[in-house]
Amino acid sequence: MNNRNRRLFLIPSTLGDSPLEPVLPQGNRDILESLNHLIVEEEKTARRFLVRCGLKSNLELIHFYSLNEHTADKEIPLMIKEAGDADLGLLSEAGVPAVADPGAKVVEEAHRQGIQVIPLVGPSSIILALMASGLNGQCFAFNGYLPVKSHERAGKIRFLEKRSETEKQSQVFIEAPYRNNQLTEALLENCKPGTRLCIAANLTLPSEWIKTRPIREWRLQPPPDLNRQPAVYIILA
Amino acid sequence: MNNRNRRLFLIPSTLGDSPLEPVLPQGNRDILESLNHLIVEEEKTARRFLVRCGLKSNLELIHFYSLNEHTADKEIPLMIKEAGDADLGLLSEAGVPAVADPGAKVVEEAHRQGIQVIPLVGPSSIILALMASGLNGQCFAFNGYLPVKSHERAGKIRFLEKRSETEKQSQVFIEAPYRNNQLTEALLENCKPGTRLCIAANLTLPSEWIKTRPIREWRLQPPPDLNRQPAVYIILA
Repeated sequence: MNNRNRRLFLIPSTLGDSPLEPVLPQGNRDILESLNHLIVEEEKTARRFLVRCGLKSNLELIHFYSLNEHTADKEIPLMIKEAGDADLGLLSEAGVPAVADPGAKVVEEAHRQGIQVIPLVGPSSIILALMASGLNGQCFAFNGYLPVKSHERAGKIRFLEKRSETEKQSQVFIEAPYRNNQLTEALLENCKPGTRLCIAANLTLPSEWIKTRPIREWRLQPPPDLNRQPAVYIILA
Repeated sequence: MNNRNRRLFLIPSTLGDSPLEPVLPQGNRDILESLNHLIVEEEKTARRFLVRCGLKSNLELIHFYSLNEHTADKEIPLMIKEAGDADLGLLSEAGVPAVADPGAKVVEEAHRQGIQVIPLVGPSSIILALMASGLNGQCFAFNGYLPVKSHERAGKIRFLEKRSETEKQSQVFIEAPYRNNQLTEALLENCKPGTRLCIAANLTLPSEWIKTRPIREWRLQPPPDLNRQPAVYIILA
């Protein structure tokens, strides 16, 4: 197989049901329209996204390959092989692909095979939250999900707060949206009064809500109920 | 002053002279068109960007406020005050504002004054490089610039490599473009053969060049001359 001229496009999606025009460049749609092989997390939501992009007539031409946390590593080269010498798209379920989802393995394999990787611009909740936080964007870490068990979570929060203090490194993390309120409580309980906390919820949606305050002020004025609302948290001591 | 309905829009720019359509949502232009108060790093490049957006006729209406590394902290509330009760825009010189530039201080002050902060989508070289690297996007750190002195830089590289190994945390960093070749050499010299290195240069430009390989392969097949070409580096041991 000659991969010399093959390309893998990394295609962002919206964060939730936001309209497309405010968050996706027009150029993305044109590239998406040109692709017949798409690696997606869930075919159903991928189809829905294509319809929202006005690409309904393309649907029957497209080969979908499913990639999720259950996909075995050895299946990935097979997907790439099955597409022959055609270009591929890796479409995110929400936001940008290959950052907080299983897509990175496809990208890794593409590099191994000498396929050109082309990332497209779209909404990254991590970067949007960081921009809007006013916290240190010159040095930051994204830590994914915190532990679920409350004493482990408390330990991790104190570890991250300490590191943010010694390294001046903003610490970004997320939580399954139905546990947001517990996480907020744990932050207000475990962090020092002067530590700044940014909560960025429902980014790019009409209900977008972003505030940065010291913990001492959050204690006096807690956030609204954020249960089941996707949110990004950032602390800096 | 009543800031209750005031908004601060965070407005990305292109990375270098790329066309706008592939990297900026159409919605950004409409917001930019509605703003008469812009905080910018350099008025000259900001004006040029507005012209590229087709907003030439707006130029004479716009109040520009200059924000760079020499701006004293106390000047920031004055800019916000001078704009009266109008909405504000914080326009980046390249990429997204308030991440690797001095804009975060304006955002911080906006939160302090209760002004709503609205981040817009655009090209972040950090996120584009991370997406395209195939390295761990679930856990990563952005470290800004490495030290300039060669022994300090070597020490920092080894520290970051070690941390990437123990914490499975991708380590992202940048260099002043005219020192890229020295940084590449230092990475090939100081990292272990199995450590993976991604070099992502000229992101979103026609000359975009992105490769991820283990150090041992980079040693056999070094990158092209990247002198004066903006690049993002990522390592993961």
